[in-house]
Amino acid sequence: MKRIVDLNCDMGEGFGHWTYGDAPDDELMKIISSANVATGFHAGDPNLMNRVVSLAKEHGVSIGAHPAYRDLQGFGRRYIRSSDEELVNDIIYQIGALREFCRRHGVRLQHIKPHGALYMEAARNESLSEHLVEVLQSCAPDLLLFCMDISTTCRVALSYGQPVIREFYADRDYDQSGSIVFARKVAQFDPDRIARKCLRACREGRVDTVDGGEIEIAFDSICFHSDTPGALEIGRAIRAKLTEAGISIAPAAMLLNTAA
Amino acid sequence: MKRIVDLNCDMGEGFGHWTYGDAPDDELMKIISSANVATGFHAGDPNLMNRVVSLAKEHGVSIGAHPAYRDLQGFGRRYIRSSDEELVNDIIYQIGALREFCRRHGVRLQHIKPHGALYMEAARNESLSEHLVEVLQSCAPDLLLFCMDISTTCRVALSYGQPVIREFYADRDYDQSGSIVFARKVAQFDPDRIARKCLRACREGRVDTVDGGEIEIAFDSICFHSDTPGALEIGRAIRAKLTEAGISIAPAAMLLNTAA
Amino acid sequence: MKRIVDLNCDMGEGFGHWTYGDAPDDELMKIISSANVATGFHAGDPNLMNRVVSLAKEHGVSIGAHPAYRDLQGFGRRYIRSSDEELVNDIIYQIGALREFCRRHGVRLQHIKPHGALYMEAARNESLSEHLVEVLQSCAPDLLLFCMDISTTCRVALSYGQPVIREFYADRDYDQSGSIVFARKVAQFDPDRIARKCLRACREGRVDTVDGGEIEIAFDSICFHSDTPGALEIGRAIRAKLTEAGISIAPAAMLLNTAA
Amino acid sequence: MKRIVDLNCDMGEGFGHWTYGDAPDDELMKIISSANVATGFHAGDPNLMNRVVSLAKEHGVSIGAHPAYRDLQGFGRRYIRSSDEELVNDIIYQIGALREFCRRHGVRLQHIKPHGALYMEAARNESLSEHLVEVLQSCAPDLLLFCMDISTTCRVALSYGQPVIREFYADRDYDQSGSIVFARKVAQFDPDRIARKCLRACREGRVDTVDGGEIEIAFDSICFHSDTPGALEIGRAIRAKLTEAGISIAPAAMLLNTAA
Repeated sequence: MKRIVDLNCDMGEGFGHWTYGDAPDDELMKIISSANVATGFHAGDPNLMNRVVSLAKEHGVSIGAHPAYRDLQGFGRRYIRSSDEELVNDIIYQIGALREFCRRHGVRLQHIKPHGALYMEAARNESLSEHLVEVLQSCAPDLLLFCMDISTTCRVALSYGQPVIREFYADRDYDQSGSIVFARKVAQFDPDRIARKCLRACREGRVDTVDGGEIEIAFDSICFHSDTPGALEIGRAIRAKLTEAGISIAPAAMLLNTAA
Repeated sequence: MKRIVDLNCDMGEGFGHWTYGDAPDDELMKIISSANVATGFHAGDPNLMNRVVSLAKEHGVSIGAHPAYRDLQGFGRRYIRSSDEELVNDIIYQIGALREFCRRHGVRLQHIKPHGALYMEAARNESLSEHLVEVLQSCAPDLLLFCMDISTTCRVALSYGQPVIREFYADRDYDQSGSIVFARKVAQFDPDRIARKCLRACREGRVDTVDGGEIEIAFDSICFHSDTPGALEIGRAIRAKLTEAGISIAPAAMLLNTAA
Repeated sequence: MKRIVDLNCDMGEGFGHWTYGDAPDDELMKIISSANVATGFHAGDPNLMNRVVSLAKEHGVSIGAHPAYRDLQGFGRRYIRSSDEELVNDIIYQIGALREFCRRHGVRLQHIKPHGALYMEAARNESLSEHLVEVLQSCAPDLLLFCMDISTTCRVALSYGQPVIREFYADRDYDQSGSIVFARKVAQFDPDRIARKCLRACREGRVDTVDGGEIEIAFDSICFHSDTPGALEIGRAIRAKLTEAGISIAPAAMLLNTAA
Repeated sequence: MKRIVDLNCDMGEGFGHWTYGDAPDDELMKIISSANVATGFHAGDPNLMNRVVSLAKEHGVSIGAHPAYRDLQGFGRRYIRSSDEELVNDIIYQIGALREFCRRHGVRLQHIKPHGALYMEAARNESLSEHLVEVLQSCAPDLLLFCMDISTTCRVALSYGQPVIREFYADRDYDQSGSIVFARKVAQFDPDRIARKCLRACREGRVDTVDGGEIEIAFDSICFHSDTPGALEIGRAIRAKLTEAGISIAPAAMLLNTAA
């Protein structure tokens, strides 16, 4: 059974005058231990990035870059056929942009978590994962790479010595392969049901699947999405349920995985 | 009379499949000592940034960020009425993006030079200059700020202790105030005439003005633009003329100004 | 005293996954007679444009193009220094894009109303207004141009024979010059107070100013903004108050002004 | 043997200060009979669209919309996984934008030809082709749809009664299936060899394939690309060779195909 787990959430996914999700950033910051900050390609303009980094610092929340395909209209949820080198350059650009806001506020950039379709693509694409990790080794060898335990990304990162944080998705369904079922639109969830699902995953390392079975799941961080309807209640329920059960919530950097 | 001067040029001002200017990057790199690298807002996509940083490293050319208004269509040559905070966040974003490519290639980011209309706006706008320099002090206190000697930017930077490099514009005309005459489209120039103008500026600290007079000019770096017609010939002529006259060309970092 | 007035509102000002304002589009459509549809430069992607045009048709609401500066991040509220020709081409592009959705749904494009900073710039810029109206005369001579009575746009349009609809701003304050006080952020309003202000404007042709005076105001259409907090209540209050007083609300096309 | 054929070329594929291809627009206009005008998503800003439409009118060249995926960085050559409805709305938006410039200059919009990856996707995607043609039937039933004879697009369009123009690609290689071999970068071509290939296709309806065989090819228009190195010489060679052989070059509208 786990004693410590990270709780991460996507943050700063508005753009310009637009906001996204109905959960106030400062309330979410009280709940989570790691924030994935949108870096401008699917969401997140520089003003918002600055604000979210400042807010994260204020709440002692660790900060990660959340790079995406260049796709404001599709919110980074559309696959774009690109060369590995193109994608990795896009990712470096976005990591750097956020890292400079961290410098401004005197905090460290803790992690990187690709967003949406890019996360899913990296999870299955060996050559993209290799190219990404090779480049991370050159410019950010200590940056924690968030990924799924069963993903290609995870396997490749470990083979290069890039530290990984494996995620459990609180507000996504799993299939029998251990992958999450990707959804463009997300339905309403019951916070308590999600919290129980998380607690069971922490205690037993198991989760139910959409097709009625169950699978083993290994993870270091629990993810929920700030745009999931009722995100704030979901986050609060998870935190309460885990804390009650004696499980601490702490930033991913305390939970490093550098070897399988 | 000067013995050492920096020679800087804007680089990487294409975007995607588009290129800008007819001077090949690798030929320009043999001439200059500092490259101002477009950072994506007026030009310069991540692939191009990566390539230019790699090329600069190969040629021993120092690298600077060349941030701009968010204006691909107008090439950053259009003023956009914005708050100081908006602009400074845009600048931080762009500095960071480029700095990460420097990390990838194991080189240091030497300087920042705002591009086009943003350069001109900062040059006259006290509160923007102050806000910019304050933030640079927090995230990049060693970054050399390229500016004109007579600019507000220069005065403000020196008052905060931010190091500055003052520029002389080889391919722009001066007016009696010591400011350059901003041009959206630039005419053809005679390389030899420009080289002589630069040599005189280095030797005598003087330059002719568009209205038939002349003014004193103080500077550490000579700038020419890669999109000026005949840029390569202009750059070669300047380098040849100065070298012949016993003036060395070396990166700006060797020529720091931290006090008036 | 007026017997018929148009009631117009900005619509479709989200982008991609983002929405703007808290008033549901289909509820607003029940209240207004003319919709200003965002055309992609400050807000409004093609999917949203298609949806808003379809919704307007369903509710018998007339449709207008709401072109803006190319400024997604600033929501078109930032002035961009551009040539008249650049701006007019931007406007033509946006008008055409919306007009094609009107063709798809078998409805006519009724009007054009520049958005935000572009509206304000055209209102004071003679040469921009002239260039715009000249070009409208060539491609859209019947398109109603929404503007303020006191604006340069209005005067120029009438001199060319371009039909105009003069607006009264329900949720903006007036100054003594008859211009509205431009606000990047808008405060909370009392719906009933606004409704009474509109009724008085319809009956007496007068409105209070921010500096405690009052001015005469001539108009054909009342505008309120869908992103004003409480927009739906404001719109309902205006419609109820005017209807009660015997004033009909009808699309602008019924209220043409082709001569001063 | 053909007596009349259309000759089409992509035009206006620069953006802002960037140009694309080394063939001057006004020289190309003397050669071709139909111009595919970039509509802002992969290339082509409103100023450029206005200029190209004006130039086409001046030279009596027919005008077509050349809509693309929203992908300035990738020049529309990257597939983006999207819903049919998203893509069709993107296409309508772009058609309309160009059509308004045609209205400004008093010319008719003749055709639509999707660009790059969108052309290839439509060519094989039945449901996208159906959705596109259905919507064209509602807003542009007379617009000629440019496509390959063997494509799904062609078959679907004919079944709906949307007029098509089938293309022969002068500067692309064919495979045994009758499809062109899509290339992100294009090699140097010999103008005379291309001209002979075109003449043979016109006379015999046959073309060699990359794998050493040959296939039958049915077409109404010959396409070459303005960004192909040596485009101007290629275009001139084709026109000269065909004219010499008694084949006239005329706009596609004269060559309608409304039935298989």
